[in-house]
Amino acid sequence: MAKRVGGYTVEFEKPIKITGYAAVAGQKESEGRFGSGFDKVVYDAKAGQATWEQAESAFQREALSLALEKSGCKAEELDFLFSGDLLNQCISSTYGLKDFSVPYLGQYGACSTMAQGLIMAAVMLEASAARVCAAVTSSNFCAAERQYRFPLEYGGQRTPTAQWTVSAAGACIVASEVKGKFPLITGATVGMITDLGITDANNMGAAMAPAAAKTLLSYFSDTATIPSDYDAVYTGDLGVVGSELLRELMMREGVDISAVHRDCGEMIFDRERQDVHAGGSGCGCAASVLCGHILPSLCEGELHRVLFVATGAMMSPTSCQQGQSIPSVAHLVRIEM
Amino acid sequence: MAKRVGGYTVEFEKPIKITGYAAVAGQKESEGRFGSGFDKVVYDAKAGQATWEQAESAFQREALSLALEKSGCKAEELDFLFSGDLLNQCISSTYGLKDFSVPYLGQYGACSTMAQGLIMAAVMLEASAARVCAAVTSSNFCAAERQYRFPLEYGGQRTPTAQWTVSAAGACIVASEVKGKFPLITGATVGMITDLGITDANNMGAAMAPAAAKTLLSYFSDTATIPSDYDAVYTGDLGVVGSELLRELMMREGVDISAVHRDCGEMIFDRERQDVHAGGSGCGCAASVLCGHILPSLCEGELHRVLFVATGAMMSPTSCQQGQSIPSVAHLVRIEM
Repeated sequence: MAKRVGGYTVEFEKPIKITGYAAVAGQKESEGRFGSGFDKVVYDAKAGQATWEQAESAFQREALSLALEKSGCKAEELDFLFSGDLLNQCISSTYGLKDFSVPYLGQYGACSTMAQGLIMAAVMLEASAARVCAAVTSSNFCAAERQYRFPLEYGGQRTPTAQWTVSAAGACIVASEVKGKFPLITGATVGMITDLGITDANNMGAAMAPAAAKTLLSYFSDTATIPSDYDAVYTGDLGVVGSELLRELMMREGVDISAVHRDCGEMIFDRERQDVHAGGSGCGCAASVLCGHILPSLCEGELHRVLFVATGAMMSPTSCQQGQSIPSVAHLVRIEM
Repeated sequence: MAKRVGGYTVEFEKPIKITGYAAVAGQKESEGRFGSGFDKVVYDAKAGQATWEQAESAFQREALSLALEKSGCKAEELDFLFSGDLLNQCISSTYGLKDFSVPYLGQYGACSTMAQGLIMAAVMLEASAARVCAAVTSSNFCAAERQYRFPLEYGGQRTPTAQWTVSAAGACIVASEVKGKFPLITGATVGMITDLGITDANNMGAAMAPAAAKTLLSYFSDTATIPSDYDAVYTGDLGVVGSELLRELMMREGVDISAVHRDCGEMIFDRERQDVHAGGSGCGCAASVLCGHILPSLCEGELHRVLFVATGAMMSPTSCQQGQSIPSVAHLVRIEM
């Protein structure tokens, strides 16, 4: 049985094992800092499909197939699939995964989706409602630009605080009744929606930083641990602006994460050579860094105990046009080897 | 601990109690068959808000507040909120519920969201990861028409198979460690994405019927039960066309549900007096019928054991414009008194 500690954190009793994981990324992403960690690089922006949306679906399909293969598990052994993405009505997930014929529970946490899917999978296993689950998510630069900002053909100028939506997908297979040494999900903190009134959709790092701070502060307080108890605290995709803000917000509360903090959005691209302004973003950002860098580093013994805190900005183009601020969320997963 | 029976069904061991529920509906809905069952009727289409999207948020807020009140539970006692809706990026949920300050897990199951949220809440309780959860969802006719079809001002003609998006919200409070007699969630079957190639976005009942049939057939086979073991089998919003198709699809597999089958979309409006073509639809349809009719009937002893099978069509306007078919899903919850 899971145990609640403090106000918001859940500790899992069963060994919740990540038995397989895979990251699929586009060319630009492969030229970033984790290029060698991705299981597959797709050089065609449309991945051989008719549309960008379908390309994103193909990325999800490929990531899940590879993760299943690496875990030695077959699709028909999966009890539940958790997936979601940024496209309206989460179509890259639905269309991407429908042919796996696995009971499907769509998630919407914007760029926090990978953490949310892992939490849901862990809870399903803990409740004995499942033996094997998968958590999948993705994003695609072209599809996201068209939907959230401008058609690419418009050639809109990007602001310095803007982030570059990562074209990538990540998939994890999570199981408890499997022998062997795998990265374990040992705890989780689900975030609440946080909205400090940021209305600039080109500065989502700033909108999401308070959500990440809130979740991290809850977690440290609930577990009576401090940042140096972890090899690393990875936030999702705050980018350069949001990361600095997060460290500042934490410092104000007396918690200094600067020695262990890393941000997937800040790290995924080579910001000296690649023109991505404040860094990467999108569900596929945290997911591909998790599957292409964090989990491999845990398996290779370079990391032992990390916090993975994926962040999501929950606005829509409609809510922005209607002048509403950007509510955000951050979900934390503790992963240990 | 939950128990898996057959291939797809989960039976809960703990008493998963629906300790509070509420439905908020618009004027047209109040003039339908369940008008007297709704906890609150909002006569202003914008619910005093500036936009339809914000009106939908207000419906969710009101439904959750009323459900909390009826259950005698305070918002700060909620461990998790599960919510989702049809609007892009699920904004009616996020904006509607952000001020409750409860850890939030966004769900996307289109019109199946209420069943999905109840399942997630039940699993959280079963795993002891939570003591009290809420499942909320909504839809709004004007917001949905604009987003999915045409701006209302266009005055587009509706086809006979089209359904009318219900303006309503429903909320359930789910807890296990509470004394008293309440409707119990005793089992669930999560559906898989089903796509038989329907491409007509004005005939979603037909697109969703095969998903409902698949989930129901799995459930009856898993549990070795038959339709007459239940007082009623409520599907979500197949409407007139989809309901007939479902009964036919089930009959072909040798399962006759006609004596116990009812459909929330077929029932919510008074189809003789109200011009709604094939019936109601939208996340708020199944949710408000559940909270305004099914749960009250269970509490009053008119029903004892029902299956609630909410169905969702998982397409988007983009996927339709790109010529893709409509993938659907149906999640089943068994509720007993």
